[in-house]
Amino acid sequence: MKKLIIIVLTIFATTVLIYGQRKNVNLPDLPGYITLKCDFHLHTVFSDGNVWPTVRAAEAYINGLDAISITDHIEYTPHKSYIPVNHNAAWEILQEAAMQGNLILVHGAEITRDMPPGHFNALFIKDASLLDKDSVMDVFEEAIKQGAFIQWNHPGWKAQQPDGIPRMYDIHYKLIENGWLHGIEFFNYNEYYPLVMTFCKKYNLAVTGNSDMHDIISEQYTAPEYTNRPMTLVFAKERSHDSLKEAMFAGRTLVYFKDYLAGKEEYAKPFFYQCISVGKPYFEDERYIYFEVTNRSDIPFYLENGTAPAPSFMKLEANGITRIVLNKKATLPLVYDVRNIITGEDEVLKIELKF
Amino acid sequence: MKKLIIIVLTIFATTVLIYGQRKNVNLPDLPGYITLKCDFHLHTVFSDGNVWPTVRAAEAYINGLDAISITDHIEYTPHKSYIPVNHNAAWEILQEAAMQGNLILVHGAEITRDMPPGHFNALFIKDASLLDKDSVMDVFEEAIKQGAFIQWNHPGWKAQQPDGIPRMYDIHYKLIENGWLHGIEFFNYNEYYPLVMTFCKKYNLAVTGNSDMHDIISEQYTAPEYTNRPMTLVFAKERSHDSLKEAMFAGRTLVYFKDYLAGKEEYAKPFFYQCISVGKPYFEDERYIYFEVTNRSDIPFYLENGTAPAPSFMKLEANGITRIVLNKKATLPLVYDVRNIITGEDEVLKIELKF
Amino acid sequence: MKKLIIIVLTIFATTVLIYGQRKNVNLPDLPGYITLKCDFHLHTVFSDGNVWPTVRAAEAYINGLDAISITDHIEYTPHKSYIPVNHNAAWEILQEAAMQGNLILVHGAEITRDMPPGHFNALFIKDASLLDKDSVMDVFEEAIKQGAFIQWNHPGWKAQQPDGIPRMYDIHYKLIENGWLHGIEFFNYNEYYPLVMTFCKKYNLAVTGNSDMHDIISEQYTAPEYTNRPMTLVFAKERSHDSLKEAMFAGRTLVYFKDYLAGKEEYAKPFFYQCISVGKPYFEDERYIYFEVTNRSDIPFYLENGTAPAPSFMKLEANGITRIVLNKKATLPLVYDVRNIITGEDEVLKIELKF
Amino acid sequence: MKKLIIIVLTIFATTVLIYGQRKNVNLPDLPGYITLKCDFHLHTVFSDGNVWPTVRAAEAYINGLDAISITDHIEYTPHKSYIPVNHNAAWEILQEAAMQGNLILVHGAEITRDMPPGHFNALFIKDASLLDKDSVMDVFEEAIKQGAFIQWNHPGWKAQQPDGIPRMYDIHYKLIENGWLHGIEFFNYNEYYPLVMTFCKKYNLAVTGNSDMHDIISEQYTAPEYTNRPMTLVFAKERSHDSLKEAMFAGRTLVYFKDYLAGKEEYAKPFFYQCISVGKPYFEDERYIYFEVTNRSDIPFYLENGTAPAPSFMKLEANGITRIVLNKKATLPLVYDVRNIITGEDEVLKIELKF
Repeated sequence: MKKLIIIVLTIFATTVLIYGQRKNVNLPDLPGYITLKCDFHLHTVFSDGNVWPTVRAAEAYINGLDAISITDHIEYTPHKSYIPVNHNAAWEILQEAAMQGNLILVHGAEITRDMPPGHFNALFIKDASLLDKDSVMDVFEEAIKQGAFIQWNHPGWKAQQPDGIPRMYDIHYKLIENGWLHGIEFFNYNEYYPLVMTFCKKYNLAVTGNSDMHDIISEQYTAPEYTNRPMTLVFAKERSHDSLKEAMFAGRTLVYFKDYLAGKEEYAKPFFYQCISVGKPYFEDERYIYFEVTNRSDIPFYLENGTAPAPSFMKLEANGITRIVLNKKATLPLVYDVRNIITGEDEVLKIELKF
Repeated sequence: MKKLIIIVLTIFATTVLIYGQRKNVNLPDLPGYITLKCDFHLHTVFSDGNVWPTVRAAEAYINGLDAISITDHIEYTPHKSYIPVNHNAAWEILQEAAMQGNLILVHGAEITRDMPPGHFNALFIKDASLLDKDSVMDVFEEAIKQGAFIQWNHPGWKAQQPDGIPRMYDIHYKLIENGWLHGIEFFNYNEYYPLVMTFCKKYNLAVTGNSDMHDIISEQYTAPEYTNRPMTLVFAKERSHDSLKEAMFAGRTLVYFKDYLAGKEEYAKPFFYQCISVGKPYFEDERYIYFEVTNRSDIPFYLENGTAPAPSFMKLEANGITRIVLNKKATLPLVYDVRNIITGEDEVLKIELKF
Repeated sequence: MKKLIIIVLTIFATTVLIYGQRKNVNLPDLPGYITLKCDFHLHTVFSDGNVWPTVRAAEAYINGLDAISITDHIEYTPHKSYIPVNHNAAWEILQEAAMQGNLILVHGAEITRDMPPGHFNALFIKDASLLDKDSVMDVFEEAIKQGAFIQWNHPGWKAQQPDGIPRMYDIHYKLIENGWLHGIEFFNYNEYYPLVMTFCKKYNLAVTGNSDMHDIISEQYTAPEYTNRPMTLVFAKERSHDSLKEAMFAGRTLVYFKDYLAGKEEYAKPFFYQCISVGKPYFEDERYIYFEVTNRSDIPFYLENGTAPAPSFMKLEANGITRIVLNKKATLPLVYDVRNIITGEDEVLKIELKF
Repeated sequence: MKKLIIIVLTIFATTVLIYGQRKNVNLPDLPGYITLKCDFHLHTVFSDGNVWPTVRAAEAYINGLDAISITDHIEYTPHKSYIPVNHNAAWEILQEAAMQGNLILVHGAEITRDMPPGHFNALFIKDASLLDKDSVMDVFEEAIKQGAFIQWNHPGWKAQQPDGIPRMYDIHYKLIENGWLHGIEFFNYNEYYPLVMTFCKKYNLAVTGNSDMHDIISEQYTAPEYTNRPMTLVFAKERSHDSLKEAMFAGRTLVYFKDYLAGKEEYAKPFFYQCISVGKPYFEDERYIYFEVTNRSDIPFYLENGTAPAPSFMKLEANGITRIVLNKKATLPLVYDVRNIITGEDEVLKIELKF
């Protein structure tokens, strides 16, 4: 009964599940790897979300994502008086839409418990209905048996940690000991948890970031600073389901939300240098040298703590060219902190500029 | 599991169904009547829509509407392998959200048949499940028994009329004869059907306009010209469910979409004069008189076919002030056609300006 | 040689100096007074500005202002090797454009000295060339002789007060004693000086706010928070040059920039109450009462420090409707600080809401 | 007296003439050539423009241009009662700003006569004051002596050709015969003249496009379709004044305005193929093949007149990815007209897509 707006699609007799204009998210690859943009935490009407599963594929397509996972709650299904519980429904319904939209669909589910241990996504599973068990350790065991990547979700969520600070309990240490924990969310919805950086570095876990969206992406991220939903950037050998899985278990990730990047320095540093290039000086007068820095990414970079007489602050505008007027007495390379690339609980990336 | 963005709502213990900033749609009342903004044609996951019913209330609240009706298809329920058919589900689920959002909720359903007779909304009904019958005339009879306002939907929809031209068949004449037809959609989704103006004037029916939305309002109306979804403006004695119903049966409506208004001249003319006021001349030189016209509505008006030496064209900007530089030889009143106020199949509103 | 875009203007044989769409700045009048929006500090190519005088009139027209003054520097004319010094040139050139645009043109000039005493605008003067004298006290005397309103400009400008704090020197006390000082800028360009509130209240001076624009208004105020340039709101008995002058000498002003209003409480309080209205409750459940507050102005209001269980914070969106969900145990009236209405050096407006 | 907004510039002791964020205009180079973005037609207060010359450099910097020319009228200087006539003033004043902004500054002037011959820009000249002569042929001769590139400006300007159609008179044939005409404006301000394509192809002249701006660029091009001012794209061997001049005389240009490109097919065709790439099919079902086309430029391309069962129309969104769902019965390559690449008076570019 639906009339479609998009002209290229009006030729269809079959059902078109994906529509809208795909955004070209402008982020570089790393040498040897392709950067896959992923949201591993999404809900639908099959738990407490407000949309039919195909909406998640259409949103991901429009937002320029490469991979998504629907992770409806196993233990929380408030629509059940109208919709019978079916933990694999969203996965089944999305198959065709994902293929039409060239999206990698990761089978997932959210294990939804009080703290401890809290909420966890089991990703790359095979049958979500088998995760509906009483004992949470039995659930983890079943997920692992299915080959799951286990992600600890929003560890500082105030409904479970009123002070907003993530805490590791016995059960979390036990999961790590078993090799049953593989990543933790640094970004969730519109929040972030600095301490997650420390946990991930200490226990060698992947840093992840996801939207945890229950409603409509475009209506929840409306303020001008929300240029993009939270996403996990995964550095995969190829653009495929299996390469994505390999990269996740290997922990090759950064996370991206608003103007912020976060993750381990080993990925953050080469990523920054892939984004920018410094031009040769084009003019000088008796006191200054003039040159330009080009930023080829969607992320503006805020450089701080420069040493006088170099500018103490510079903003390298997204997809833009920034003119630098440098006092000739400044020494090269110019050293800066990148305020919006977080590499630790209390640490940002240090970079150097020279021409 | 949802974390709410809006600060004033974080104090809640109960479930908040309505959120977001309400838009103040700037349209005047008519003398003696309040202008109610309504969308009487909306779908949810309970037929072939892609959202949970509360999304429709949140959207209506944000868009500044006064009244909505969920009109899921009776005869078309493609989600039934996952969601058991329940024609009253959306109505039940929306009760609390509508009250929280100060929205008038009209109980409705869409009778969904091949052409003839096509699709019809039964509005102001009591039990949609009783409309699930084989014979379409039995369905109409049951709806009328429940006190329904019957609206003929998208009569020129190309899936049913490939040339886009509405046609009246025997069954439509029969409905009119019985007093079983009360309105016809002029605007539906992103289409309009000029001939509807002729039908409505000839058979004394209400002109209506609705979104027929299956997806997300904000994502379907994204182009800059879509300042608003199609809506029916109803001139009611009070802002209440019963006054709305009285006004609909009395046919006191205009329809509004993008920059367009349409409807009967008896409502369109006073509506235009409520929107604008003409200021006294503030300056003149040897050849020209200078004055301003203020338009206090969200609708820009395009005035055409002025008589030289008056300007042949003027745009009265929405919520703006337009300066007119008038040749002193022009005669008052200035007479114009308002290009974007449609009062007939091939006719626009004629107005006069004087100071 | 110029081709005009605006269609209504293409009929002209004479030169059209004002063009573009006038913005309807949505701010209320005060009972008994009309609110005039004014910018009393503007530069052109005749001192160190970068535009021809008519650009200032076109900008003011587009921005919805009622009055402007060009206040080119008397003592600083860096373009003089190309443009002969002529302190009245901008005033002469603007006469016709101001009349065409229904703008009140105030004859002005900027007395431009080192601190003390700093920079001052002489407004409502008759001949700027007579202000070109060696002794600054002679200049003030001449301005006063011409009937000038003397405004102290940007008293905390860092080029003259490196710590940004305004200071009164002997000469300022002398001016006040003589009755030769009538107002001080609280807003200038993109700065504000809290201490000005104290000076104005103590010495009974008008609070003013202006752009001090040298370049192009629309290009200097581009960030989303710059919804408007700094302006002085003057509460005049009529919309005329003489009423404006009377109101300025009487000190009936507020100043407006971005989301901020500032000025004396006697004007700020009634202004706030003219902007908003509180609706009757439309719904209640066992714990909450629901009602709406309408803000009919372009200024959003940020209400802080509410007493629990009332919401501690509310934003009353500009030209919008804000839904309040009030705990039934809260007591009326609700008392709030309006964070963005500044009434003193360290003081904001206190208001009450009740239905 | 100006306070600067941009933080990196506040360290300056010297005058900063260029400020604002430079836009990265995303257009490809051609193999062997660099694409220089140029506006060769601009006015200032030194003829009938409304801005000081440095404004033109700041605008060009912000707009991402590589080269500009100030071309004030020789014969029309309406500000002369305030500003003494000086045809080289803008050129002198702009030297430093151009160097600071890495802009190539082309010395120019506009020969301003009634039709015939109309208006002409002399570009790459040495002394504009020598062009102030009675006989227009003497002026051309002097310009040529200085090495000028002569551009015929807005040949269909309605003030000189009321029907908007360019006409060649005896004097134009004479100029061509002498080798004294090198290019013609296809775009000027907000107009275009289709017939210019025929003239340029027939007489082997460069197609040019410029803003002819008298006012403020950002305020004249405000409608959403004005993503950029009219500009001449010049394919130069290097980014230098001399390479630019060589390329102009060689006629290696396209012109760009809004969504439109125009010029000779020999440049338009490789330019299009540098903008887009066609991906390998990623999915197929029984009836369709799915693939994506990436457009790496700021120009959306509108492909028309496809042969069924291929889509008849496609829009390749600017900086975006377009999904094509292709009927398997369609034959490769797909052939389309690019509606917005104009290669003749009545002709658009034909292109082929294949994977």
